[in-house]
Amino acid sequence: MRIAVDAMGGDNAPRVVVEGAVRAATDTSADVILVGDTPQIEDLLREFPDKSGRVTIEHADGVVSMADSPVEALRRKGDTSIGRCADLARAGEVNAIVSAGNTGAAVAAATLAMRMLEGIRKPGITAALPTVGADECVVIDLGANIKPKPEHLLGYGLMVREYCTAIMGKPNPSIGLLNIGAEDAKGNELVKETHALFRASDLNFAGNVEGRDIFMGKIDAVVCDGFVGNVVLKTAEGVAEAVMSTMRTALAEKLIYKIGASLCKPAFNKTRRKLDSSAYGGALLLGIDGICIISHGSADAEAISNAVRVATELSNHRVNEHIVEAVRRTRSAAETETATE
Amino acid sequence: MRIAVDAMGGDNAPRVVVEGAVRAATDTSADVILVGDTPQIEDLLREFPDKSGRVTIEHADGVVSMADSPVEALRRKGDTSIGRCADLARAGEVNAIVSAGNTGAAVAAATLAMRMLEGIRKPGITAALPTVGADECVVIDLGANIKPKPEHLLGYGLMVREYCTAIMGKPNPSIGLLNIGAEDAKGNELVKETHALFRASDLNFAGNVEGRDIFMGKIDAVVCDGFVGNVVLKTAEGVAEAVMSTMRTALAEKLIYKIGASLCKPAFNKTRRKLDSSAYGGALLLGIDGICIISHGSADAEAISNAVRVATELSNHRVNEHIVEAVRRTRSAAETETATE
Repeated sequence: MRIAVDAMGGDNAPRVVVEGAVRAATDTSADVILVGDTPQIEDLLREFPDKSGRVTIEHADGVVSMADSPVEALRRKGDTSIGRCADLARAGEVNAIVSAGNTGAAVAAATLAMRMLEGIRKPGITAALPTVGADECVVIDLGANIKPKPEHLLGYGLMVREYCTAIMGKPNPSIGLLNIGAEDAKGNELVKETHALFRASDLNFAGNVEGRDIFMGKIDAVVCDGFVGNVVLKTAEGVAEAVMSTMRTALAEKLIYKIGASLCKPAFNKTRRKLDSSAYGGALLLGIDGICIISHGSADAEAISNAVRVATELSNHRVNEHIVEAVRRTRSAAETETATE
Repeated sequence: MRIAVDAMGGDNAPRVVVEGAVRAATDTSADVILVGDTPQIEDLLREFPDKSGRVTIEHADGVVSMADSPVEALRRKGDTSIGRCADLARAGEVNAIVSAGNTGAAVAAATLAMRMLEGIRKPGITAALPTVGADECVVIDLGANIKPKPEHLLGYGLMVREYCTAIMGKPNPSIGLLNIGAEDAKGNELVKETHALFRASDLNFAGNVEGRDIFMGKIDAVVCDGFVGNVVLKTAEGVAEAVMSTMRTALAEKLIYKIGASLCKPAFNKTRRKLDSSAYGGALLLGIDGICIISHGSADAEAISNAVRVATELSNHRVNEHIVEAVRRTRSAAETETATE
């Protein structure tokens, strides 16, 4: 298993990326290729020495910064670290790529370099969000496609079903459509048209769901457009942070609270871990013919290390093969139906 | 001050609405008119007796249920409780209306019965959301207008500025545009075009903000389209609930945590109160020539009582007059500019 890691992507790159990649090489059996500025990476490898012998460097000059427009940046800087990662994947030299850099650039690079899966028109960013229940809720799209068509959302539904089946062991996951009310008639044109497509499909469609439902543990997966999904993700992060911070402030007000809080500390830590996005490693760009993990810009070494681990699991579980088979089954069913009409 | 309250609107109506309205009449100097099914309201008034002598009943036969399509419902049921509330406002018989019922129906009824404020094209649902800071963040639109034009969002910016000035005592509030990244070039067409309008305006425009920024206490107000705003609101509610519930579960696991938690109880309660939407009473439909408070469907008696109190404050602070003046100033400045070009 070979994983290319964009050493230059992320708020704390290349430092935490190199640290996380070294940790991943130690903890998994993956070969890790750090892609980026060789002198900087070499310096950091002296600080975080690789004892596994499975970390190598692939040089790339340019970096796509967070402020760059994704497509522009890729055109302008032919040899960026994220562009080079995608090229390695296209050439079959790596099984997966990982980046904590500019999300738009990662989506653009992966989509341009690797082909789309057969029958899939647009990729979607996918992540499992924590819920009050035992299971997570898988949400697609978190920002790859901010002006999708209903057919794209149907493709997301199909892909997320295969993801839930292969990775989470749920053969027929319930899938909701994110809307502003549970009633069928609610929503904008995109959601209404998508609703009809979902109803006519063989998905286990649970109907419209609202923002709060994602976190209540009653639905396995939720489909939405990339603009809304990105806002949901960042709102959820902000609210979780705000609640914990408000509580911390309230607990610091009196000595008796501090004493009580110290007794509860393991329970607080457990709550924080459950909410912590770094444990999840990152989001997955589903729909491309390859594996691309997009980590949070603020990813730390642990998050990068987890992202590499997730990439190896995805490759082992053959999610993409399952998606292609599902698309073929759906198509052939549609053709049979047309033929018998 | 006379306030019409939709007695039949909300998940727990008419019971909690009557209870809350009676409480509001006692706690404020407002005359409260309960609009809905007279026999049911009379029964409940025996249970929650009005000692203020300022609660009256206005009969209305129909109810718009949560599942009804707003405009359809209004056409079908001429004499619904929310429709009757709006009619009372149009006739000048009340200063404000309050409903915890079908949001779409409240928006449609208020917009049809009352006129729009001079220079404002579309109303927007506005609410102050809690933040980690001392101040709340006012967000508009939370679901009145799910397919807005850039000019509508500019109107929201102008209205929310006047709201922050009149109600929150902030003369020149910072206003952000909700987007999927801070960079100017990000977002869909609506957001990009709105960004340009905001830049050219005299608003204290803070640029694009992300979902998390709403809760960080660094921005006074945020403008977004109604679909996205509604998803943000419900996501925020869901996450806050999920965090508290996850913590409750973790704290129940061991006796020592329970002891610690009992010492911290006042701090937990303070956190919960800060996050509790019922304390805020409800959202405001800004842009109509009148005052319409839209409470949460799950509103309890306290929330209804607070909504009535907020309605009296809004009337006292003459927010609508300030908006009309601001629109006139903006227009006259634009005309002067054109004349001198």
